[in-house]
Amino acid sequence: MENVTNKEQERLPLVGVIMGSTSDWETMKLACQVLAELGIPFESRVVSAHRTPDEMFRYAETAVERGLRVIIAGAGGAAHLPGMVAAKTVLPVIGVPVKSSHLSGMDSLLSIVQMPAGVPVATVAIGPAGATNAGLLAVQMLGMHDGAVRARLEARREAVRQQVQATGDLE
Amino acid sequence: MENVTNKEQERLPLVGVIMGSTSDWETMKLACQVLAELGIPFESRVVSAHRTPDEMFRYAETAVERGLRVIIAGAGGAAHLPGMVAAKTVLPVIGVPVKSSHLSGMDSLLSIVQMPAGVPVATVAIGPAGATNAGLLAVQMLGMHDGAVRARLEARREAVRQQVQATGDLE
Amino acid sequence: MENVTNKEQERLPLVGVIMGSTSDWETMKLACQVLAELGIPFESRVVSAHRTPDEMFRYAETAVERGLRVIIAGAGGAAHLPGMVAAKTVLPVIGVPVKSSHLSGMDSLLSIVQMPAGVPVATVAIGPAGATNAGLLAVQMLGMHDGAVRARLEARREAVRQQVQATGDLE
Amino acid sequence: MENVTNKEQERLPLVGVIMGSTSDWETMKLACQVLAELGIPFESRVVSAHRTPDEMFRYAETAVERGLRVIIAGAGGAAHLPGMVAAKTVLPVIGVPVKSSHLSGMDSLLSIVQMPAGVPVATVAIGPAGATNAGLLAVQMLGMHDGAVRARLEARREAVRQQVQATGDLE
Amino acid sequence: MENVTNKEQERLPLVGVIMGSTSDWETMKLACQVLAELGIPFESRVVSAHRTPDEMFRYAETAVERGLRVIIAGAGGAAHLPGMVAAKTVLPVIGVPVKSSHLSGMDSLLSIVQMPAGVPVATVAIGPAGATNAGLLAVQMLGMHDGAVRARLEARREAVRQQVQATGDLE
Amino acid sequence: MENVTNKEQERLPLVGVIMGSTSDWETMKLACQVLAELGIPFESRVVSAHRTPDEMFRYAETAVERGLRVIIAGAGGAAHLPGMVAAKTVLPVIGVPVKSSHLSGMDSLLSIVQMPAGVPVATVAIGPAGATNAGLLAVQMLGMHDGAVRARLEARREAVRQQVQATGDLE
Amino acid sequence: MENVTNKEQERLPLVGVIMGSTSDWETMKLACQVLAELGIPFESRVVSAHRTPDEMFRYAETAVERGLRVIIAGAGGAAHLPGMVAAKTVLPVIGVPVKSSHLSGMDSLLSIVQMPAGVPVATVAIGPAGATNAGLLAVQMLGMHDGAVRARLEARREAVRQQVQATGDLE
Amino acid sequence: MENVTNKEQERLPLVGVIMGSTSDWETMKLACQVLAELGIPFESRVVSAHRTPDEMFRYAETAVERGLRVIIAGAGGAAHLPGMVAAKTVLPVIGVPVKSSHLSGMDSLLSIVQMPAGVPVATVAIGPAGATNAGLLAVQMLGMHDGAVRARLEARREAVRQQVQATGDLE
Repeated sequence: MENVTNKEQERLPLVGVIMGSTSDWETMKLACQVLAELGIPFESRVVSAHRTPDEMFRYAETAVERGLRVIIAGAGGAAHLPGMVAAKTVLPVIGVPVKSSHLSGMDSLLSIVQMPAGVPVATVAIGPAGATNAGLLAVQMLGMHDGAVRARLEARREAVRQQVQATGDLE
Repeated sequence: MENVTNKEQERLPLVGVIMGSTSDWETMKLACQVLAELGIPFESRVVSAHRTPDEMFRYAETAVERGLRVIIAGAGGAAHLPGMVAAKTVLPVIGVPVKSSHLSGMDSLLSIVQMPAGVPVATVAIGPAGATNAGLLAVQMLGMHDGAVRARLEARREAVRQQVQATGDLE
Repeated sequence: MENVTNKEQERLPLVGVIMGSTSDWETMKLACQVLAELGIPFESRVVSAHRTPDEMFRYAETAVERGLRVIIAGAGGAAHLPGMVAAKTVLPVIGVPVKSSHLSGMDSLLSIVQMPAGVPVATVAIGPAGATNAGLLAVQMLGMHDGAVRARLEARREAVRQQVQATGDLE
Repeated sequence: MENVTNKEQERLPLVGVIMGSTSDWETMKLACQVLAELGIPFESRVVSAHRTPDEMFRYAETAVERGLRVIIAGAGGAAHLPGMVAAKTVLPVIGVPVKSSHLSGMDSLLSIVQMPAGVPVATVAIGPAGATNAGLLAVQMLGMHDGAVRARLEARREAVRQQVQATGDLE
Repeated sequence: MENVTNKEQERLPLVGVIMGSTSDWETMKLACQVLAELGIPFESRVVSAHRTPDEMFRYAETAVERGLRVIIAGAGGAAHLPGMVAAKTVLPVIGVPVKSSHLSGMDSLLSIVQMPAGVPVATVAIGPAGATNAGLLAVQMLGMHDGAVRARLEARREAVRQQVQATGDLE
Repeated sequence: MENVTNKEQERLPLVGVIMGSTSDWETMKLACQVLAELGIPFESRVVSAHRTPDEMFRYAETAVERGLRVIIAGAGGAAHLPGMVAAKTVLPVIGVPVKSSHLSGMDSLLSIVQMPAGVPVATVAIGPAGATNAGLLAVQMLGMHDGAVRARLEARREAVRQQVQATGDLE
Repeated sequence: MENVTNKEQERLPLVGVIMGSTSDWETMKLACQVLAELGIPFESRVVSAHRTPDEMFRYAETAVERGLRVIIAGAGGAAHLPGMVAAKTVLPVIGVPVKSSHLSGMDSLLSIVQMPAGVPVATVAIGPAGATNAGLLAVQMLGMHDGAVRARLEARREAVRQQVQATGDLE
Repeated sequence: MENVTNKEQERLPLVGVIMGSTSDWETMKLACQVLAELGIPFESRVVSAHRTPDEMFRYAETAVERGLRVIIAGAGGAAHLPGMVAAKTVLPVIGVPVKSSHLSGMDSLLSIVQMPAGVPVATVAIGPAGATNAGLLAVQMLGMHDGAVRARLEARREAVRQQVQATGDLE
């Protein structure tokens, strides 16, 4: 992929996983687990839209040159991190609505998904299922031009399918 | 008020009214009308969190030094403008949830009001009533230390009160 | 500030923190903690729109003359306290939607934020985050004309920023 | 009924119909129409919780001595009128949630119905159907101790029933 | 009151408290406690719109002749009990939306309050606060023509007011 | 089907389509159109839970003996018709949430679908699409034991499928 | 029923109960319990729209020939199982919205009930009550042409009715 | 890109834009306009989850071999198309919630975004803004490994930025 040797690719993260607060880690680690499971190098850190806005902008501005290809951003409540990062890079940004204290993540969801025309955020489900899917979606994006990555995704799906098939009748 | 002569005060805006898009002007002009009515110098312009993020940060960073004392920010949908401006200044920021196309401004409201601890946005009602109130709230803040401004607010209220009183019986 | 010597200022509360019920204290004490932390004199008490309506009106009517500059009012459910106090004073009123038993504070939020044109309430987030932010917003209003207060707010933000920065990579 | 001669009863209103704004009249007149239709003396006027708070309190405080037996209060958005009147009188208060501009009256409904223990508001449906029912409910309350009033209500219902019966098959 | 001697009045219930299921008793007993506290004779039983529809109709049809003056009906989910009882009697019916398992009583509230023009239900808040208020509202209706009952309500309010006043400053 | 000769079957309605008000006909006629299109005899009339409760009970009680096999009931707002009919018959009842004036049919939907264990209502989508589907669902139920009816349903689906297929590329 | 001897009928399931995940069994077993209680042969298994899509299609396509007469499908969140099965068979499909982790099953409900014209899903309440009712609804459909089944349903209702009647007065 | 010559690339679509109904075209054409503007070959057609389920599966199964790299799927109401396509391919699927007749697209949004762990859908905003963003997101995904595509995206953003900048002061 563009000026990156196979060897460097193993070292340099392709996916940046960021979140607004350490309390989001419990949810967002599921994205990291999927990336690790499927062999995709990634980095993960706290970058807060409201508490470290300048660092957030720097993170987004330098993402391409640092070799990132996708950014996964998780946040809760008035969740501005995914949308603001998306405003500062043309890499795809995946937004994970973290469950909020009072409105069950409905505020997080609407704050992330209802972006105006011009700056998309690829939004996934509220909470842990969304975080897992953010990891998978990032890999699917990397697999768009990489048959080997697609093969790993297909193998994962087949394993899940067989697991469901093995359940048999319930009683 | 702090290093500003009376004369300058007439020229320099004390309130900055910003909005994410020209389509918000229909709503936000009501804030400006109140400020004009009550004799408060202000400025108004489009500053978009998603389309002009760097200009937004610059606007917020330079607000104090330019003499602004309050910022009114209106936005709709995934409304990040008020919260991001609030993250970049310690001046009070008033957020106006502009009615959105599909969810009637509920998305705007939650994106603005549900800020995490540390960065408040003073949120008002959805739509034109909220914009009018944003203007009044800004004046109320300026009136905290200025009895003359408070007197103008009280006169306005008294006029409204008499108008209601004059309605008489309905039939 | 207007007819108040520095010394009196230390004794007289500048911010009134009121709430509809003692059960709101668990939430509202966070506003008080912020005010205490930032050295702003305040008072806090139960004033109920529905159970002590006349006392509520008296509280609002005498607020200016008693030296208050901002009022923070927290309430839950059909939360009428912030809006009714706002109807009786031209000081800025900050409304904190306290989490309600059944609707997670969505009823509190709408009862507080959806004020008609003419009488604004500066609404913050539902629950404890909102209470903390109500305290900060009150200080930001006091800091509009007081560079020293603004400096304290900036120092607090910088401390928070460094705390986030220190988190480093998650794994 | 208590110190009121039959003759006075015809002159003195038994039901007070109030609303926060003249714009609510379009809805609230339906309550008045029902009262007129069923021969109940009533009065109707604008009394605003936020724009004429003192008049609102006076209205509620003097209601019993003026001979009112029920109060119907309509309001929209952060609808505080019914609950605040209820806080100032032990007469039954019927609240009509008027359709609001952006949230279809859901904010009005929650602001009216979610009253804390101690101060009930008898809430009816959002909008015109609710206003009609507020009128009927007031008459039902008056009919609790008055067989003649109940008979009029039963006649009205029977007329409606026959109207529905007369519809026949649709095609 | 109408053909009822004072002595009978003490024995005969004036208020009927019904609910759709024994599981609603935990909530609805609060209505009964208020009635008992204020000396109003009442009865309470399970009458289910869906499980005992004929008994429900009989209950409503015979309410007037049995001396009832108000009916309080509590139900959850698709809560049809209050509205169906209201369709079968011209006595005022107070509806209590009982908290439901999954939607926090929002379904109960809408099923009860959104009655079509012609058949009102006096709806109170979701859950225990609503049940308490249903009891108080029933007493307020009985107090419309009974100064002694009103006096008891005013005494109760004054006691509550003094309790709030006694709270003093919080810290 | 059970004691009904083929000839009678052509005359006697198998499906009863009822609705709370003539204003629901605009929606509910779509159910009738589907039944007519697929050759199922039906009847349609206004039966109101709140305005003609006794007729509603009679309708439900006599449905089986009159030869009905399914009942389709449409209603809006606090929509009690489907659930109350279902409480009075063991025939399947299909509920159509008719769009309501203020809450877009969300109140209708919850009032119909959230039935307690013991009395199901087969609920379809809000509005016209739901009415069409109510007709189809009734036919599907009749087709459970009738291959010829199923064949007609399959033919209808195939026609729709070919219509979609014929659309070709959009531009 | 169509080419099925009485004896086979006892062995072959008439109702297929499927669900998207083993975690749905806790809810869906209530449907099975009702079917067992009323003597209806059924089968139950995990069939996932998203994890085993081909098996889902096969299940729906072969349902008629395998003798199924109704399908009950439970799923949560973006609940596609009931609607997709309904798209592949003309047997009636009953959808059970299983409570979801964050939105209390509101997402499940809307994903199931809001089907477009042409493909109905008979939707029941969210959660266990819905699952019980799905079982009862399936039996009601089977009872449309089977007086004996209807008799069992009526006996069950009568037993429930007597149970409620036996409750007596609460205190 | 993988086995595709530059020349073929111009002929073969890289993005498949599908929708459940021709009525979705009004919304979905905005995705196509963006793709055309940015020079990305695409195809667009109606593929319905409920009306042409087998064609939908075939579409998803053959997408990779036909050279598609991303699929954009728009649907309204119980919107199953994006999720079911995502279940049948490991290419990234972007879901556009089309505004629905009664619930403003909230049903569409929840049906699309709340996917279970294992099968992500990259969800964008409700309605036209979402469709435009779906087109941009698809291009961003293609630009992950193609600096020239990224450059076109950056040029587009810069043009938009300058347009906003040129607005100047509002009055």
